Amino acid sequence: MKVVKFGGSSLANAAQVQKVVNIIKADDQRRFVVVSAPGKRFAGDIKVTDLLITYANDVIKQRPLDDITTQIISRYQEIAQAFHISDADFNEIKAAILQLPDHSYQDNDYLMAAFKAHGEKLNAILFAKVLTSAGLNAKYLDPKDVGLVVTDRPNDADIIPESYDRLGEWAASSIIRVIPGFFGYNLQDQICTFSRGGSDITGAIVARGVHADRYENFTDVNAIYAANPKVVENPIAIHHMTFREMRELAYAGFSVFHDEALIPAIQGDIEVVVKNTNHPSERGTSITSTKRVNPAYPVSGIASSPDFCGIYIRKYMLDKKSYSQKILNILAQYGLSYEHMPSGIDDLTVIMKQDQLTPDLEDLLIRELVIALHPDEIHITHDYALLMVVGEGMLNRTGLMSKATDALARQNVKLVMVNQGASEISMMFGIQQDKADASVQALYDAFFPDL
Amino acid sequence: MKVVKFGGSSLANAAQVQKVVNIIKADDQRRFVVVSAPGKRFAGDIKVTDLLITYANDVIKQRPLDDITTQIISRYQEIAQAFHISDADFNEIKAAILQLPDHSYQDNDYLMAAFKAHGEKLNAILFAKVLTSAGLNAKYLDPKDVGLVVTDRPNDADIIPESYDRLGEWAASSIIRVIPGFFGYNLQDQICTFSRGGSDITGAIVARGVHADRYENFTDVNAIYAANPKVVENPIAIHHMTFREMRELAYAGFSVFHDEALIPAIQGDIEVVVKNTNHPSERGTSITSTKRVNPAYPVSGIASSPDFCGIYIRKYMLDKKSYSQKILNILAQYGLSYEHMPSGIDDLTVIMKQDQLTPDLEDLLIRELVIALHPDEIHITHDYALLMVVGEGMLNRTGLMSKATDALARQNVKLVMVNQGASEISMMFGIQQDKADASVQALYDAFFPDL
Repeated sequence: MKVVKFGGSSLANAAQVQKVVNIIKADDQRRFVVVSAPGKRFAGDIKVTDLLITYANDVIKQRPLDDITTQIISRYQEIAQAFHISDADFNEIKAAILQLPDHSYQDNDYLMAAFKAHGEKLNAILFAKVLTSAGLNAKYLDPKDVGLVVTDRPNDADIIPESYDRLGEWAASSIIRVIPGFFGYNLQDQICTFSRGGSDITGAIVARGVHADRYENFTDVNAIYAANPKVVENPIAIHHMTFREMRELAYAGFSVFHDEALIPAIQGDIEVVVKNTNHPSERGTSITSTKRVNPAYPVSGIASSPDFCGIYIRKYMLDKKSYSQKILNILAQYGLSYEHMPSGIDDLTVIMKQDQLTPDLEDLLIRELVIALHPDEIHITHDYALLMVVGEGMLNRTGLMSKATDALARQNVKLVMVNQGASEISMMFGIQQDKADASVQALYDAFFPDL
Repeated sequence: MKVVKFGGSSLANAAQVQKVVNIIKADDQRRFVVVSAPGKRFAGDIKVTDLLITYANDVIKQRPLDDITTQIISRYQEIAQAFHISDADFNEIKAAILQLPDHSYQDNDYLMAAFKAHGEKLNAILFAKVLTSAGLNAKYLDPKDVGLVVTDRPNDADIIPESYDRLGEWAASSIIRVIPGFFGYNLQDQICTFSRGGSDITGAIVARGVHADRYENFTDVNAIYAANPKVVENPIAIHHMTFREMRELAYAGFSVFHDEALIPAIQGDIEVVVKNTNHPSERGTSITSTKRVNPAYPVSGIASSPDFCGIYIRKYMLDKKSYSQKILNILAQYGLSYEHMPSGIDDLTVIMKQDQLTPDLEDLLIRELVIALHPDEIHITHDYALLMVVGEGMLNRTGLMSKATDALARQNVKLVMVNQGASEISMMFGIQQDKADASVQALYDAFFPDL
């Protein structure tokens, strides 16, 4: 049995919804359907989730609501009409939209969460009707009914583990269940959403809960590629990768699948398959815990992520343990997180996301570090990119670092950081970010030669 | 004006002492002479310091002392006789040796420190007489008289900064002052020694205190070499390097000059020259704060240091800041220090000296880490060597990492760690230590081609 999840672009309009209906009809193992809110129908269009955020803000600021509610209703109506959903049936959705401001909310955060979540909720209600009208035995299933309970953070909730057992009770039925993605309920029955893009998470939670054989994540790409197609022309598709590879590539900017959604999949050891709603016959990318046997290429993917900075600190004969403890304490004090702290003999560099720092905060931080550490030298360098070469096939292979650094040297890319050894399946390079695209291309050419 | 320091092998016997006399006569700028205890005269010989340690232990355990005192006295007597030191003069030294047990010591640590320090002290007294008999105006100068005050740790003392000013008052005199290395006095006038090999430290302290133009450190090698001559055949001599380079090479096993001795030299910006007592006309190695201009090779030296281990810890979506804080706390709790902590996306490796761990302590540490971190995976790997490629010329050069990793890949050396970016003047590789010598050779060949 399979859990299938469809993203916003797969459900943006009637034509897309029809593709989804066909996909579900094509395989009777697809019994749990998790849906996002309708996404963009064309470039420049507004996602329903964003319309709902506007709606919520209009309510909070007591602005007129007619225009925004009309816009939202019309998005669902367009789909309902195309599938001949009765007015009586559609009125349920329309009323829910109009009545959103009438409920009482603990505060504006909960209000916002509930408004946003209705993008998914109403789409799931509508889609269950669409499936029924297409002759399938389908029913809407609310996260409340299924016992999908989450922690009490209105806009960044986590699943509570007991939810999995309750979900498991729904596994046996042959009815197709349509479940809205993105949200659950806290113990006080208030809607709390996952972080944005969280329908992937719901899909993974359901897949783990019902012990699905496979979690199909339908989106708008044929596969995950070995490099960003906006940077490298026609990169090869990755047809199989491990959870670890996906996680490392996601960290460095591969945004196809939500990071947090991997956790339930890993815990339940559920195969995740990324597929294209528009080309469902394409193989897609399968993500599992098992490594490829004898892969053609030892590397799976190459990614780069911009906007890091590095604080370089040097002191003769520094005591590394007390030094790094002091640094961590100062970072904690300012609520800053760091990514890496490579160390030399008498120096270390704190690599962090630079969007955490303002020029003022930077000055303050440096001053604080000078007072605490009395360094011989301290300076901060901006605009690094982290470049990742990821692949389970790298483990125990000699010569890959040489191949990578060779390729980068030929492009005159200055390596401000090289980090290998912590992760067994990746190499990491710090470079100037204006060289990031050229570096990704060079590494791609080096690691994915024509076979 | 110069401070000169002679190591144990330079003062091991009369023939060596004669070379030292000649060196001092050859340059009237050599006005402060710091001496070690007499070292080995031949392979298998015992250093006077080691004889004194035996002596101290015999006293502590109330064993017979005749044999050991005879051995120690004969070492000094051999030199005294060769330079026709009068019996009356020599009796001072002999009496000091015999009377060592008669003093009162706070505890056995102070006793041990005082016994050991007399290796240097009596050698300095004797050598001042030798210089006088050679027609030079030379006088013994005791660390107590010169105000060389140290912290109250009997066997691992540090200089107290006020000592420098008191030393400065001796700078003007034209008399040659012979000062014993290795020890000072605490505020209670008890002898405390520096860490072993600490005569280098005394020399550097004196050089800083008297504002010497140069600190000449005489030993038994013509220069510091770009690689260990026991590993690489005929490595090139390094004729000039910076303090930073020396420090990084010393960390990785270049043992010519004591690590801590660099600190006063850096603070006083005193040129340190390593020279050979046996070939004083050789250029030696000059260590300063100034970089070489247009060096022939960007790299100065290549070194490897064995006996590291790595604790690999992986947890999906770990929070690096709290994770590393917990690790540092556990290390602190067991009094363990670490060298590096390279991190991947969801994993990090704690690199430490493995002689800190016993199998039992290892088990305990791993158990503690499991409880605190709930990692998805944790394991420890032994017998790493750290390989360092050091050179101020590396800064801002592209392609050196590529050259290094290329050379290592051709030797099938598996890189378990690559670390660059913290130190601006070195690259560091973690390798299996049975490949260390082959790696040093490969890197030497790559970075020091015939010009």
